Amino acid sequence: MMKRHALFQEAGFKDEAPNNYLVHDSPYFKVINFNFKAGQKLPVHSHDIEGQLTIAVLEGQGKFLGKDEAEMPAETGDVLVSDIAEPHGIQAETDMRVLVTIAPPI
Amino acid sequence: MMKRHALFQEAGFKDEAPNNYLVHDSPYFKVINFNFKAGQKLPVHSHDIEGQLTIAVLEGQGKFLGKDEAEMPAETGDVLVSDIAEPHGIQAETDMRVLVTIAPPI
Repeated sequence: MMKRHALFQEAGFKDEAPNNYLVHDSPYFKVINFNFKAGQKLPVHSHDIEGQLTIAVLEGQGKFLGKDEAEMPAETGDVLVSDIAEPHGIQAETDMRVLVTIAPPI
Repeated sequence: MMKRHALFQEAGFKDEAPNNYLVHDSPYFKVINFNFKAGQKLPVHSHDIEGQLTIAVLEGQGKFLGKDEAEMPAETGDVLVSDIAEPHGIQAETDMRVLVTIAPPI
């Protein structure tokens, strides 16, 4: 089942909201590519379930968001690891592409 | 447990072999950053166990390797999805940083 996804070609940006592109969904994990135009955000949220997620920045920069208005830099090559149950979000400062991996899949 | 890993600062390259940097290991997944100097490779291999992995190219370019000497381009922003049991590998053409996510963890 080996499959290559060329995300910089396959997924673009939207003016009205972050572009959400499902890369892979299986019993093992769900993989989603979010593309943000500068200024777009994924507001802080959480789900009260078991599991963890990573957010890897493929291009651009912004901030990782956490609980109590916490902010951390999010630069290309950064990876955030979080429990799914922990509040998390993203704020884009430039156009920004990130890869989110959720295990087990929601 | 939210944690940010700034891979471009935290992990470098080695002359003698790919640099292998453990980002995260939990019951849900294992996340490893491999950095290849141009010409280095992770030879094709597989493990006869359940599960899947992704290889996301954070920087640089090369080839994804598969069974029977299969090759696919591996450019920045590309993501390869594979069963753990399926032969897979990487050949770097430039200096190259990739993020490997394995679920469940090996």
